[in-house]
Amino acid sequence: MSTFIEKLGIRYATKKMTGEKISSEELNTILEAIRLTPTSLGLQPLKVLVLESEEAKASIKAACYGQSQITDGSQVLVFAVYTEGFEALTEKYIQNIAATRSVPVESLNDFKQMILGHLKNLSIDDTIAWAKKQAYIALGFGLVAAAEVGVDSTPMEGFNPAAVDEILGLKAKGLASTVILTLGKKDAANDYLAHAKKVRRTSADFFEFI
Amino acid sequence: MSTFIEKLGIRYATKKMTGEKISSEELNTILEAIRLTPTSLGLQPLKVLVLESEEAKASIKAACYGQSQITDGSQVLVFAVYTEGFEALTEKYIQNIAATRSVPVESLNDFKQMILGHLKNLSIDDTIAWAKKQAYIALGFGLVAAAEVGVDSTPMEGFNPAAVDEILGLKAKGLASTVILTLGKKDAANDYLAHAKKVRRTSADFFEFI
Repeated sequence: MSTFIEKLGIRYATKKMTGEKISSEELNTILEAIRLTPTSLGLQPLKVLVLESEEAKASIKAACYGQSQITDGSQVLVFAVYTEGFEALTEKYIQNIAATRSVPVESLNDFKQMILGHLKNLSIDDTIAWAKKQAYIALGFGLVAAAEVGVDSTPMEGFNPAAVDEILGLKAKGLASTVILTLGKKDAANDYLAHAKKVRRTSADFFEFI
Repeated sequence: MSTFIEKLGIRYATKKMTGEKISSEELNTILEAIRLTPTSLGLQPLKVLVLESEEAKASIKAACYGQSQITDGSQVLVFAVYTEGFEALTEKYIQNIAATRSVPVESLNDFKQMILGHLKNLSIDDTIAWAKKQAYIALGFGLVAAAEVGVDSTPMEGFNPAAVDEILGLKAKGLASTVILTLGKKDAANDYLAHAKKVRRTSADFFEFI
């Protein structure tokens, strides 16, 4: 069995997938890792659309510049951040903490005011930029989880977010697509990257020890 | 042994650490996971400062609002993104691909022009915002890797980036601190979060299947 690091060395941005489905166990592990992702203040300012049906996947293919993994992938995960409703999200979060930890809502008031104060200090553009960074932590969790269970994946920034939002009706829901992760099985024979060596800066260049 | 998901369920933003060092094997696994993080176009527009000495950690504590994990942590990782020099970074990246995969540099010219074109289409502010999102993928990899090897960690946005940049001399190097990850051993007896249940939205609320 490969070690954790070996699995991360094997993973790569798959360019060609076979169209095979991954198992529900594999999918559930990846989704659970994404759901458990920590986010700033714990607010989870995102939602993940899981496109499974052939229709749903095909609907955004052109908006993803025709990339074949969108339809040859088993599932396409669209990470979407909230663009509004942050106060309501905060209220729901506080209720969730109270219920999960069996503490009175009132005991969380300072924390709630701290979150609301943080949000008030940011413009809406900065709030959305902040939310997007949280979505990228979740992308990281999804990528590692896929590698861990041996599922191939492709992180994608190369798509038209406005078009994807329109097609999936995200704008009406106060959401904006930020990044995509396609899950599936690589078509090793037809993927030019399948056997390419991973390119990374050396540790000496990438890290600085102080 | 805990499963992958169990480990992610156990991890939490540690508020109080003991000051104990983690092993070099643990540190190396976490750093290697971070180094292997995929980034948009493969460009790796970041550098990770690994603060290990007591002096280095103490030097940024005030700029991190006195959070005790900064000095009680074993290592403090400062994820810093490039704020300039993206053309040189691209050139170095192309040379790295050529050397790693034993292909002529000329064969990568289209790819190089594509990257330079992408960068040219972004303002410098948007380029930096894009680089920061990549740093957050690396944060995700670091968080999962720490959980995997049983090291406690604290992701932190709560610090003064300008002050940290000044103290660590990052600005002069064309870098800007973006997010911090402290690694160490939790002080379970004195950490109010050590036994708190994890709060996350339900799958039904967090995901939408289409």
